[in-house]
Amino acid sequence: MAATRYPQALQHIMSFFGRLPGVGRRTAERLTLAMMAWPEEQIEQFGQALVELKKKVRPCASCGNYAEGELCAICQDPERERGVLCVVEQASQIIVLENSGSYKGLYHVLGGKLSPLSGKGPEALRIKELAARLRQGDISEMIIAISPDVEGEATAHFLAQEFAALPMTITRIASGVPVGADLNFADAATIAIALSGRHQL
Amino acid sequence: MAATRYPQALQHIMSFFGRLPGVGRRTAERLTLAMMAWPEEQIEQFGQALVELKKKVRPCASCGNYAEGELCAICQDPERERGVLCVVEQASQIIVLENSGSYKGLYHVLGGKLSPLSGKGPEALRIKELAARLRQGDISEMIIAISPDVEGEATAHFLAQEFAALPMTITRIASGVPVGADLNFADAATIAIALSGRHQL
Repeated sequence: MAATRYPQALQHIMSFFGRLPGVGRRTAERLTLAMMAWPEEQIEQFGQALVELKKKVRPCASCGNYAEGELCAICQDPERERGVLCVVEQASQIIVLENSGSYKGLYHVLGGKLSPLSGKGPEALRIKELAARLRQGDISEMIIAISPDVEGEATAHFLAQEFAALPMTITRIASGVPVGADLNFADAATIAIALSGRHQL
Repeated sequence: MAATRYPQALQHIMSFFGRLPGVGRRTAERLTLAMMAWPEEQIEQFGQALVELKKKVRPCASCGNYAEGELCAICQDPERERGVLCVVEQASQIIVLENSGSYKGLYHVLGGKLSPLSGKGPEALRIKELAARLRQGDISEMIIAISPDVEGEATAHFLAQEFAALPMTITRIASGVPVGADLNFADAATIAIALSGRHQL
């Protein structure tokens, strides 16, 4: 076997790279060997930054986004509309919404979707925290921006029922054919939802 | 800009990933966010392993291969033939030769190729160290396994001249059409060298 020829310390690094998504054994080998050509200080700095990463970057105490202090940059930003709350699955999806440049409200990271089959019930998600924020009464609209798959729809319906009594609008992001996509390649479920959600021109 | 939205510590990690070959800004982002889902201890262990990497893995004092002690695993192996020395550019290429399973001698890492245009002369390579090993007189054959490009050929010729007076055979790995390759896709230079190196069946 090839891998047994590398010193242990190199194999150790390769095993960490290999745990990243889309990085197979060969890519892990290639990345590790490429890094061996870096100056020693640079590899050390990378290592040190990783050691400190989760000490520095914590979930925002309010929304769950990545934050370096108590609150994330968005929660601290006085320019954001505080009456709109967008619920997402993961902190990484906040950037996707921010990149669209069309949302100026706050966020709430749920930490996943309901998934009864894998034993993920409401208590496994940040729903209690969401309830606490909503009960403060400042939110006039909650936008549910969870992926439109089976579990995502179930989660959206659960949230809509759970908070139906609160004096706010609950909305769901639109599903349909992506902008710029070719209809030939749209799946049947997307076509069906795009048809049922049609609007007059 | 999207990147400005991430906490500094996350951007810092992304910048390190982005220095790896084939890792663009988007991939660096994806890898970093995927790693954020790892348990804190695991990220710390990865970081710690990187901090220690270049302290643990040093060039072998004899051949220049990756080594965890004074000498690499190959130089220490009593089973290797000590009369044959294979000269390679980089330590990472030793694995490529080892994987072929058809070489049982020792290695010498040159640390690059001669490149007069970029000011890389013989003194920038590990040629003095090679000379010292060859002068001990135990080597009966030196195989030059440097890539067959322009700089590689120049380096091979330089080495052949430099050590012509020593009582040993100096050989060069064969160039030609790769095993399993389609002749339709071989370049003209490879075809020319494959023709001139033809042998009787």
